[in-house]
Amino acid sequence: MVLPFDDAYFMKKALQEAEIAYEKGEVPIGAVIVVQERVIARAHNLTEQLNDVTAHAEMQAITAAANFLGGKYLKDCTLYVTLEPCQMCGGALYWSQISKIVYGARDTQRGYEVMGTTLHPKTKIVGGILENEAADLLKRFFIQKRNLN
Amino acid sequence: MVLPFDDAYFMKKALQEAEIAYEKGEVPIGAVIVVQERVIARAHNLTEQLNDVTAHAEMQAITAAANFLGGKYLKDCTLYVTLEPCQMCGGALYWSQISKIVYGARDTQRGYEVMGTTLHPKTKIVGGILENEAADLLKRFFIQKRNLN
Repeated sequence: MVLPFDDAYFMKKALQEAEIAYEKGEVPIGAVIVVQERVIARAHNLTEQLNDVTAHAEMQAITAAANFLGGKYLKDCTLYVTLEPCQMCGGALYWSQISKIVYGARDTQRGYEVMGTTLHPKTKIVGGILENEAADLLKRFFIQKRNLN
Repeated sequence: MVLPFDDAYFMKKALQEAEIAYEKGEVPIGAVIVVQERVIARAHNLTEQLNDVTAHAEMQAITAAANFLGGKYLKDCTLYVTLEPCQMCGGALYWSQISKIVYGARDTQRGYEVMGTTLHPKTKIVGGILENEAADLLKRFFIQKRNLN
């Protein structure tokens, strides 16, 4: 059976957010948060525009989802993010008690896993969903940036 | 020689912020960020009021300091915070490349150190400044909260 709302479906929504970041000259990373097959928050990296290292896509999505839900815990939510979260975002996700994290490309340099970040014991994690699309967008961004400098 | 602007002086400012959090019913943690003996950002924990797990004192102080400076890196700044940062805040401080972190009480449960968070290699860290004052305020808060429930 083909499910209409599978992980790839929502990861495409996160990739659309990453494309918006790309157009703004931001490192192209996007995220959405989903409850019961409904997107309740969408965000993309805004560290340059906001001059703020904390403005990662995941952080903004966590804040927006909690605002939507009216409570700070995201126990029944799934985060879709195009790149593996860093230790800051992993730490925020720990506090949120989110039920599931689905990421696209792995970050072998600054990802939560290589940095040894602890996720909440109740959080499931799945990596590698549409990883090529996410990684290609990042590569395209950094190649273009190098050529402009 | 007694220095008028030593670590204890600025930690007292952070403790004043923690007291404001206490009065609001928030876990009493406060922070200030200092450049050249001048406070450029002050913040206290607002996770309850904002319904947001990311609203730790340090996160808000990082955002406010970057806003004040007009740039996202805090290379010449010192953060004073009454409790050892968690992995989320440690991760944010890593991205900020802050020059120095001074904390009060140690957090042996959820502190960045026990959680294995990596700070920036250029960041100096000092713990234990006015730790009893910071810890007493936290104890007072949790005792009062227990008695109210």
